[in-house]
Amino acid sequence: MRRTSFSQWPCSIARTMDFLGDWWTPLVLREVFFGSTRFDDIQRALSIGRNVLAERLRRLTAEGILRRTRYQERPPRYEYHLTEKGRDFYPVLLAVTRWGDRWLHGTKGPPLLLRHTACGQITRGELVCERCRKPLPHGEVTAELPSGATPDLDVRIAATRRVARAGGRAPRRSQPAR
Amino acid sequence: MRRTSFSQWPCSIARTMDFLGDWWTPLVLREVFFGSTRFDDIQRALSIGRNVLAERLRRLTAEGILRRTRYQERPPRYEYHLTEKGRDFYPVLLAVTRWGDRWLHGTKGPPLLLRHTACGQITRGELVCERCRKPLPHGEVTAELPSGATPDLDVRIAATRRVARAGGRAPRRSQPAR
Repeated sequence: MRRTSFSQWPCSIARTMDFLGDWWTPLVLREVFFGSTRFDDIQRALSIGRNVLAERLRRLTAEGILRRTRYQERPPRYEYHLTEKGRDFYPVLLAVTRWGDRWLHGTKGPPLLLRHTACGQITRGELVCERCRKPLPHGEVTAELPSGATPDLDVRIAATRRVARAGGRAPRRSQPAR
Repeated sequence: MRRTSFSQWPCSIARTMDFLGDWWTPLVLREVFFGSTRFDDIQRALSIGRNVLAERLRRLTAEGILRRTRYQERPPRYEYHLTEKGRDFYPVLLAVTRWGDRWLHGTKGPPLLLRHTACGQITRGELVCERCRKPLPHGEVTAELPSGATPDLDVRIAATRRVARAGGRAPRRSQPAR
Protein backbone atom coordinates (compact mmCIF):
# COMPACT_ATOMS: atom_id res chain seq x y z
CA MET A 1 0.00 0.00 0.00
CA ARG A 2 1.47 3.30 -1.10
CA ARG A 3 1.22 5.77 1.74
CA THR A 4 -0.01 9.31 1.28
CA SER A 5 2.66 11.52 -0.28
CA PHE A 6 3.43 14.65 1.68
CA SER A 7 6.15 15.88 -0.66
CA GLN A 8 4.19 18.79 -2.09
CA TRP A 9 2.45 19.97 1.07
CA PRO A 10 3.30 23.56 2.00
CA CYS A 11 4.83 22.33 5.24
CA SER A 12 8.44 21.57 6.06
CA ILE A 13 7.48 18.91 8.57
CA ALA A 14 5.34 17.04 6.05
CA ARG A 15 7.99 17.30 3.37
CA THR A 16 10.72 16.10 5.68
CA MET A 17 8.58 13.13 6.72
CA ASP A 18 8.01 12.36 3.07
CA PHE A 19 11.69 12.65 2.30
CA LEU A 20 12.66 10.30 5.10
CA GLY A 21 10.53 7.58 3.55
CA ASP A 22 10.69 5.20 6.47
CA TRP A 23 12.30 4.86 9.86
CA TRP A 24 15.41 3.26 8.51
CA THR A 25 16.52 6.53 6.97
CA PRO A 26 17.23 8.39 10.23
CA LEU A 27 18.98 5.30 11.55
CA VAL A 28 21.17 5.03 8.48
CA LEU A 29 22.03 8.70 8.93
CA ARG A 30 22.74 8.05 12.59
CA GLU A 31 25.32 5.45 11.57
CA VAL A 32 26.96 7.82 9.13
CA PHE A 33 27.10 10.50 11.83
CA PHE A 34 28.63 7.89 14.13
CA GLY A 35 31.39 7.55 11.56
CA SER A 36 30.32 4.52 9.49
CA THR A 37 30.84 5.25 5.83
CA ARG A 38 30.83 1.80 4.26
CA PHE A 39 27.93 -0.40 3.27
CA ASP A 40 29.02 -3.41 5.31
CA ASP A 41 29.63 -1.38 8.48
CA ILE A 42 26.21 0.25 8.31
CA GLN A 43 24.57 -3.05 7.45
CA ARG A 44 26.16 -4.81 10.42
CA ALA A 45 25.43 -2.02 12.87
CA LEU A 46 21.74 -1.92 12.03
CA SER A 47 21.13 -5.56 11.04
CA ILE A 48 19.25 -4.12 8.12
CA GLY A 49 18.50 -6.12 4.99
CA ARG A 50 21.09 -5.50 2.27
CA ASN A 51 18.53 -4.64 -0.37
CA VAL A 52 16.75 -2.23 1.99
CA LEU A 53 20.02 -0.53 2.88
CA ALA A 54 21.06 -0.32 -0.78
CA GLU A 55 17.78 1.36 -1.62
CA ARG A 56 18.08 3.86 1.26
CA LEU A 57 21.66 4.75 0.35
CA ARG A 58 20.64 5.21 -3.27
CA ARG A 59 17.85 7.53 -2.22
CA LEU A 60 20.00 9.50 0.23
CA THR A 61 22.59 9.94 -2.52
CA ALA A 62 20.00 10.96 -5.09
CA GLU A 63 18.56 13.51 -2.63
CA GLY A 64 21.98 15.03 -2.07
CA ILE A 65 22.26 14.03 1.59
CA LEU A 66 25.16 11.66 1.01
CA ARG A 67 27.96 11.76 -1.53
CA ARG A 68 29.24 8.45 -2.84
CA THR A 69 32.92 7.97 -3.55
CA ARG A 70 34.73 4.88 -4.77
CA TYR A 71 37.42 3.66 -2.42
CA GLN A 72 38.32 0.41 -4.21
CA GLU A 73 38.45 -0.37 -7.90
CA ARG A 74 38.13 -4.14 -8.22
CA PRO A 75 35.55 -5.02 -7.18
CA PRO A 76 34.12 -1.50 -6.99
CA ARG A 77 33.42 -0.41 -3.42
CA TYR A 78 31.99 2.87 -2.24
CA GLU A 79 32.00 5.10 0.79
CA TYR A 80 29.21 7.44 1.74
CA HIS A 81 29.94 10.88 3.14
CA LEU A 82 27.63 13.59 4.37
CA THR A 83 27.09 16.62 2.19
CA GLU A 84 26.25 20.02 3.67
CA LYS A 85 22.56 19.11 3.36
CA GLY A 86 23.29 15.90 5.23
CA ARG A 87 25.36 17.49 8.00
CA ASP A 88 22.61 20.03 8.45
CA PHE A 89 20.30 17.19 9.53
CA TYR A 90 22.35 16.64 12.69
CA PRO A 91 20.29 19.01 14.87
CA VAL A 92 17.19 16.97 14.06
CA LEU A 93 18.86 13.85 15.41
CA LEU A 94 20.07 15.74 18.50
CA ALA A 95 16.56 17.04 19.17
CA VAL A 96 15.15 13.54 18.79
CA THR A 97 17.87 12.20 21.07
CA ARG A 98 17.07 14.70 23.79
CA TRP A 99 13.39 13.80 23.74
CA GLY A 100 14.00 10.07 23.63
CA ASP A 101 16.64 10.29 26.37
CA ARG A 102 14.14 11.98 28.62
CA TRP A 103 10.99 10.04 27.89
CA LEU A 104 11.71 6.60 26.50
CA HIS A 105 14.13 4.90 28.86
CA GLY A 106 12.16 4.63 32.07
CA THR A 107 14.30 4.78 35.17
CA LYS A 108 17.38 3.42 33.40
CA GLY A 109 18.36 6.74 31.92
CA PRO A 110 19.83 7.40 28.49
CA PRO A 111 22.08 4.78 26.91
CA LEU A 112 24.74 7.31 25.94
CA LEU A 113 25.93 10.65 27.25
CA LEU A 114 27.07 13.33 24.85
CA ARG A 115 30.06 15.55 25.47
CA HIS A 116 30.58 18.85 23.70
CA THR A 117 34.26 18.83 22.85
CA ALA A 118 34.40 22.62 22.48
CA CYS A 119 33.39 23.29 26.09
CA GLY A 120 34.27 19.89 27.53
CA GLN A 121 30.97 19.34 29.31
CA ILE A 122 28.42 16.56 29.23
CA THR A 123 25.51 18.15 27.45
CA ARG A 124 22.33 17.82 25.47
CA GLY A 125 21.12 19.73 22.47
CA GLU A 126 18.77 22.58 23.32
CA LEU A 127 16.58 24.39 20.84
CA VAL A 128 16.79 28.18 21.12
CA CYS A 129 15.69 31.22 19.14
CA GLU A 130 18.46 31.95 16.65
CA ARG A 131 17.97 35.67 17.18
CA CYS A 132 17.78 36.19 20.95
CA ARG A 133 19.34 32.83 21.97
CA LYS A 134 16.63 32.24 24.55
CA PRO A 135 14.47 29.09 24.62
CA LEU A 136 11.72 28.84 22.02
CA PRO A 137 8.90 26.98 23.74
CA HIS A 138 5.48 26.24 22.33
CA GLY A 139 3.32 29.22 23.15
CA GLU A 140 6.01 31.74 22.25
CA VAL A 141 5.99 31.12 18.52
CA THR A 142 3.56 32.49 15.96
CA ALA A 143 3.53 31.88 12.23
CA GLU A 144 3.37 34.43 9.43
CA LEU A 145 3.14 34.29 5.68
CA PRO A 146 6.20 35.34 3.74
CA SER A 147 5.36 37.98 1.14
CA GLY A 148 3.90 36.44 -1.97
CA ALA A 149 2.82 33.30 -0.18
CA THR A 150 -0.37 31.37 -0.69
CA PRO A 151 -3.08 32.82 1.54
CA ASP A 152 -4.62 29.43 2.31
CA LEU A 153 -2.37 29.15 5.34
CA ASP A 154 -4.09 32.12 7.00
CA VAL A 155 -6.13 29.86 9.23
CA ARG A 156 -2.98 28.30 10.66
CA ILE A 157 -1.45 31.65 11.30
CA ALA A 158 -4.47 32.81 13.23
CA ALA A 159 -4.29 29.57 15.18
CA THR A 160 -0.71 30.11 16.24
CA ARG A 161 -1.66 33.56 17.56
CA ARG A 162 -4.44 32.09 19.63
CA VAL A 163 -2.04 29.51 21.02
CA ALA A 164 0.49 32.16 21.92
CA ARG A 165 -2.22 34.22 23.65
CA ALA A 166 -3.35 31.18 25.56
CA GLY A 167 0.22 30.68 26.67
CA GLY A 168 -0.28 33.74 28.80
CA ARG A 169 2.07 35.97 26.87
CA ALA A 170 1.03 38.90 24.76
CA PRO A 171 2.54 38.47 21.30
CA ARG A 172 3.80 41.66 19.74
CA ARG A 173 1.67 43.13 17.07
CA SER A 174 3.23 42.20 13.77
CA GLN A 175 2.72 43.65 10.32
CA PRO A 176 0.59 41.45 8.11
CA ALA A 177 2.90 39.88 5.55
CA ARG A 178 0.69 40.96 2.63
CA MET B 1 4.27 -6.59 6.78
CA ARG B 2 5.25 -5.73 10.32
CA ARG B 3 8.29 -3.53 10.29
CA THR B 4 11.30 -4.09 12.49
CA SER B 5 10.66 -2.93 16.06
CA PHE B 6 13.21 -0.49 17.41
CA SER B 7 11.51 0.00 20.75
CA GLN B 8 14.10 -1.86 22.79
CA TRP B 9 17.22 -0.67 21.04
CA PRO B 10 19.65 1.16 23.33
CA CYS B 11 19.23 4.29 21.22
CA SER B 12 16.94 7.25 21.69
CA ILE B 13 16.67 7.87 17.97
CA ALA B 14 15.56 4.30 17.28
CA ARG B 15 13.07 4.33 20.14
CA THR B 16 11.61 7.63 19.06
CA MET B 17 11.21 6.37 15.52
CA ASP B 18 9.49 3.29 16.89
CA PHE B 19 7.22 5.38 19.06
CA LEU B 20 6.18 7.62 16.18
CA GLY B 21 4.88 4.57 14.31
CA ASP B 22 4.33 6.32 11.02
CA TRP B 23 4.57 9.73 9.45
CA TRP B 24 1.06 10.70 10.43
CA THR B 25 2.06 10.96 14.05
CA PRO B 26 4.31 14.03 13.71
CA LEU B 27 1.67 15.64 11.51
CA VAL B 28 -1.08 15.00 14.06
CA LEU B 29 1.19 16.55 16.69
CA ARG B 30 1.84 19.48 14.36
CA GLU B 31 -1.90 20.11 14.24
CA VAL B 32 -2.21 19.98 18.00
CA PHE B 33 0.69 22.42 18.32
CA PHE B 34 -1.09 24.63 15.79
CA GLY B 35 -4.01 24.73 18.20
CA SER B 36 -6.34 22.02 16.89
CA THR B 37 -7.65 19.97 19.76
CA ARG B 38 -10.71 18.25 18.29
CA PHE B 39 -10.97 15.18 16.14
CA ASP B 40 -12.86 16.85 13.30
CA ASP B 41 -10.49 19.81 13.11
CA ILE B 42 -7.43 17.59 12.92
CA GLN B 43 -9.13 15.28 10.46
CA ARG B 44 -10.04 18.14 8.13
CA ALA B 45 -6.66 19.83 8.36
CA LEU B 46 -4.80 16.67 7.39
CA SER B 47 -7.39 14.94 5.18
CA ILE B 48 -6.48 11.84 7.12
CA GLY B 49 -8.75 8.80 7.26
CA ARG B 50 -10.95 8.82 10.36
CA ASN B 51 -9.91 5.34 11.46
CA VAL B 52 -6.23 6.17 11.00
CA LEU B 53 -6.59 9.36 13.02
CA ALA B 54 -8.55 7.59 15.74
CA GLU B 55 -5.80 5.01 16.06
CA ARG B 56 -3.06 7.65 16.21
CA LEU B 57 -4.90 9.66 18.85
CA ARG B 58 -5.47 6.51 20.89
CA ARG B 59 -1.80 5.70 20.70
CA LEU B 60 -0.66 9.23 21.53
CA THR B 61 -2.99 9.22 24.52
CA ALA B 62 -1.83 5.78 25.67
CA GLU B 63 1.79 6.93 25.40
CA GLY B 64 1.11 9.96 27.53
CA ILE B 65 1.76 12.53 24.80
CA LEU B 66 -1.83 13.74 24.70
CA ARG B 67 -4.45 13.95 27.42
CA ARG B 68 -8.05 13.36 26.43
CA THR B 69 -10.82 15.37 28.05
CA ARG B 70 -14.54 15.25 27.35
CA TYR B 71 -16.00 18.55 26.23
CA GLN B 72 -19.51 17.37 25.41
CA GLU B 73 -21.66 14.75 27.10
CA ARG B 74 -24.23 13.64 24.54
CA PRO B 75 -22.92 12.43 22.28
CA PRO B 76 -19.55 12.17 24.00
CA ARG B 77 -16.91 14.34 22.34
CA TYR B 78 -13.30 14.74 23.35
CA GLU B 79 -10.51 17.25 23.11
CA TYR B 80 -6.84 16.36 23.02
CA HIS B 81 -4.28 18.43 24.88
CA LEU B 82 -0.53 18.15 25.07
CA THR B 83 0.98 16.77 28.23
CA GLU B 84 4.46 17.79 29.37
CA LYS B 85 5.85 14.84 27.42
CA GLY B 86 3.95 16.10 24.38
CA ARG B 87 5.02 19.74 24.71
CA ASP B 88 8.58 18.56 25.06
CA PHE B 89 8.38 17.20 21.52
CA TYR B 90 8.11 20.74 20.12
CA PRO B 91 11.86 21.22 19.62
CA VAL B 92 11.92 18.13 17.41
CA LEU B 93 9.32 19.70 15.14
CA LEU B 94 11.21 23.02 15.14
CA ALA B 95 14.45 21.25 14.20
CA VAL B 96 12.66 19.40 11.40
CA THR B 97 11.08 22.65 10.25
CA ARG B 98 14.42 24.41 10.05
CA TRP B 99 15.92 21.65 7.95
CA GLY B 100 12.90 21.36 5.66
CA ASP B 101 12.66 25.14 5.30
CA ARG B 102 16.23 25.26 4.11
CA TRP B 103 16.40 22.22 1.89
CA LEU B 104 13.01 21.16 0.62
CA HIS B 105 11.39 24.20 -0.94
CA GLY B 106 13.71 25.00 -3.83
CA THR B 107 13.84 28.68 -4.68
CA LYS B 108 10.37 29.37 -3.31
CA GLY B 109 11.50 29.58 0.28
CA PRO B 110 9.66 28.35 3.36
CA PRO B 111 5.86 28.37 3.41
CA LEU B 112 5.68 30.01 6.82
CA LEU B 113 7.86 32.31 8.86
CA LEU B 114 8.08 31.92 12.61
CA ARG B 115 8.12 34.83 15.01
CA HIS B 116 9.38 34.52 18.58
CA THR B 117 6.87 36.51 20.59
CA ALA B 118 9.29 36.98 23.49
CA CYS B 119 11.84 38.91 21.39
CA GLY B 120 9.55 39.94 18.56
CA GLN B 121 11.84 38.78 15.76
CA ILE B 122 11.35 36.45 12.82
CA THR B 123 13.43 33.45 13.77
CA ARG B 124 14.23 29.79 13.40
CA GLY B 125 15.04 27.20 15.99
CA GLU B 126 18.75 26.65 16.51
CA LEU B 127 20.26 23.69 18.30
CA VAL B 128 22.90 24.69 20.85
CA CYS B 129 24.85 23.07 23.69
CA GLU B 130 22.68 23.40 26.79
CA ARG B 131 25.80 24.08 28.85
CA CYS B 132 27.85 26.66 26.93
CA ARG B 133 25.02 27.86 24.62
CA LYS B 134 27.26 27.65 21.58
CA PRO B 135 26.34 25.65 18.47
CA LEU B 136 26.69 21.89 18.68
CA PRO B 137 27.75 20.79 15.22
CA HIS B 138 28.61 17.30 14.12
CA GLY B 139 32.32 16.86 14.81
CA GLU B 140 32.14 18.56 18.21
CA VAL B 141 30.17 15.84 19.96
CA THR B 142 31.50 12.61 21.41
CA ALA B 143 29.53 9.89 23.16
CA GLU B 144 30.27 8.26 26.51
CA LEU B 145 28.76 5.47 28.53
CA PRO B 146 26.90 6.44 31.67
CA SER B 147 28.19 4.55 34.68
CA GLY B 148 26.71 1.08 34.87
CA ALA B 149 25.88 1.03 31.17
CA THR B 150 26.16 -1.89 28.82
CA PRO B 151 29.67 -1.97 27.35
CA ASP B 152 28.49 -3.11 23.93
CA LEU B 153 28.26 0.50 22.89
CA ASP B 154 32.02 0.96 23.24
CA VAL B 155 32.55 0.69 19.53
CA ARG B 156 30.21 3.60 18.89
CA ILE B 157 31.92 5.70 21.47
CA ALA B 158 35.31 5.15 19.91
CA ALA B 159 33.73 6.06 16.58
CA THR B 160 32.44 9.40 17.82
CA ARG B 161 35.94 10.25 19.04
CA ARG B 162 37.42 9.49 15.64
CA VAL B 163 34.77 11.67 14.03
CA ALA B 164 35.51 14.55 16.36
CA ARG B 165 39.23 14.24 15.65
CA ALA B 166 38.58 14.21 11.93
CA GLY B 167 36.57 17.41 12.37
CA GLY B 168 39.88 19.14 12.89
CA ARG B 169 39.28 19.94 16.53
CA ALA B 170 41.13 18.41 19.43
CA PRO B 171 38.54 16.93 21.79
CA ARG B 172 39.33 17.30 25.46
CA ARG B 173 40.58 14.24 27.16
CA SER B 174 37.63 12.81 29.02
CA GLN B 175 37.53 10.32 31.86
CA PRO B 176 36.40 6.88 30.78
CA ALA B 177 32.90 6.42 32.13
CA ARG B 178 33.79 3.06 33.74
